[in-house]
Amino acid sequence: MTATADPRFSINQMTVKQLGLPELVAACVDSGVQHIGTWREPVQAYGVEAAAKLIEDAGLTVSTHCRGGFLTAIEEADRKAAVEDNKRAVAEAATLGTNVLVLVSGGLPAGSYDLAGARERIADALADLAPYAADHGVRLAIEPLHPMFAADRCVVSTLAQALDIAERFPAHQVGVCVDTYHIWWDDQAPAQIARAGAQGRIATFQLADWVTPLPEGVLNGRGQIGEGSIDMRYWRGLVEQQGYAGPIEVELFNDGLWARDGREVLAETVDRFTEHAC
Amino acid sequence: MTATADPRFSINQMTVKQLGLPELVAACVDSGVQHIGTWREPVQAYGVEAAAKLIEDAGLTVSTHCRGGFLTAIEEADRKAAVEDNKRAVAEAATLGTNVLVLVSGGLPAGSYDLAGARERIADALADLAPYAADHGVRLAIEPLHPMFAADRCVVSTLAQALDIAERFPAHQVGVCVDTYHIWWDDQAPAQIARAGAQGRIATFQLADWVTPLPEGVLNGRGQIGEGSIDMRYWRGLVEQQGYAGPIEVELFNDGLWARDGREVLAETVDRFTEHAC
Repeated sequence: MTATADPRFSINQMTVKQLGLPELVAACVDSGVQHIGTWREPVQAYGVEAAAKLIEDAGLTVSTHCRGGFLTAIEEADRKAAVEDNKRAVAEAATLGTNVLVLVSGGLPAGSYDLAGARERIADALADLAPYAADHGVRLAIEPLHPMFAADRCVVSTLAQALDIAERFPAHQVGVCVDTYHIWWDDQAPAQIARAGAQGRIATFQLADWVTPLPEGVLNGRGQIGEGSIDMRYWRGLVEQQGYAGPIEVELFNDGLWARDGREVLAETVDRFTEHAC
Repeated sequence: MTATADPRFSINQMTVKQLGLPELVAACVDSGVQHIGTWREPVQAYGVEAAAKLIEDAGLTVSTHCRGGFLTAIEEADRKAAVEDNKRAVAEAATLGTNVLVLVSGGLPAGSYDLAGARERIADALADLAPYAADHGVRLAIEPLHPMFAADRCVVSTLAQALDIAERFPAHQVGVCVDTYHIWWDDQAPAQIARAGAQGRIATFQLADWVTPLPEGVLNGRGQIGEGSIDMRYWRGLVEQQGYAGPIEVELFNDGLWARDGREVLAETVDRFTEHAC
């Protein structure tokens, strides 16, 4: 069923998390997929050096490493621990040979109402983390998550907010992650993509489709490309007008996809990308 | 457990939908609640004239009638039917003695990607509906719904978008509904409340709290006041700085609350309002 993958296509490891890393790499080679977006936990479980070698030996590149972040804690000890953990993520990214570490910023601390204050704490943490990452050849990509995650996962809800933070740092240190799933509803997003592009801050571009009804907890309801409400070509056009020419990652969290054969899901995703995003 | 309700407090009928209208009215009288936000279906089932008499005889007022809208259809016949149905909702509101009809605008038609076009169709429909409503002493209140509803329920996701539409009409014809649940995440909302206030367009103010995890389908996960991430006094302060002095409706869609004794839920809601929003 599968044609060779488009050369821009990247498979985020989470989309087919049922595949072990060697299986994923082999499936990528078989279907012509050239890029993988890695995740910390499975890479750590396999061994970071070993994972890097496996991926490189297969001729693949790592488009992004996912994910650092969770920088909104209030207590000093928690804040230091979060920055240290992010420094380990930077080292992993460098070992994997990618220059992009995606950051999911973190939600509101328990009992707090203060979204703006939480965003300031992210900026504070980046003042330490961003130069460290740049020294390792890694750029941090702040990812705005859909506003439905503002309380419990990510207080950065829009590209505008992500750029408000990113702009405090040099563009080679901090960029943004443009993910269709999180921004498709936002009529300000096209202008913010232009703002990001003008500053050279589009660090990565990810795709997932919006399908309803959302599942309980909403995290694992991201739709296969072409099955939802998002015009993939429109958003791809916007980032490419700004000069983005890197890999385009499909990152789906979806219980239905995870329950299926991973190689079949990868093949389907390759096809859907070609059909709806090329 | 219950003190007398704050005079600004209004109970939206949906919060305690397990109560029939006579039971709800009796419970309001018992607890000093002076205002009810009505819903079309239960009012129609009871009889609109009879409901109006029941509520008026008990000394209560109707703060808003919920809800009209669903104006995003593309087919002409569907569009005409929607406007006609909204005119019936206007007549119901007038009979109930409220001057506010809340509008939930509607989602994307099947297969459409075009959020902006759907918003334009809402404005087109209001060109017919808004003068009609004003002739009946009813103002339309465009309610932005949280972006997680953009695909299937409401393409108006922010106060800014609601005001962009409302501004095409005189303020006495079209205002906006400020509901904490839908806008709390939006760093632009305070400025948009000021914009709405400067134009005299804050037609109603509703409260619900943001709690996680969201349930499947996300519609019925609105939290009891004080149980979530929203600073109710902050938002109340913003609308009152703009001169809003009307009833404040608590509108909760929550399976857990609906499974309990309705009078108990009303008493709890009265208390929570006093504790967290006064």
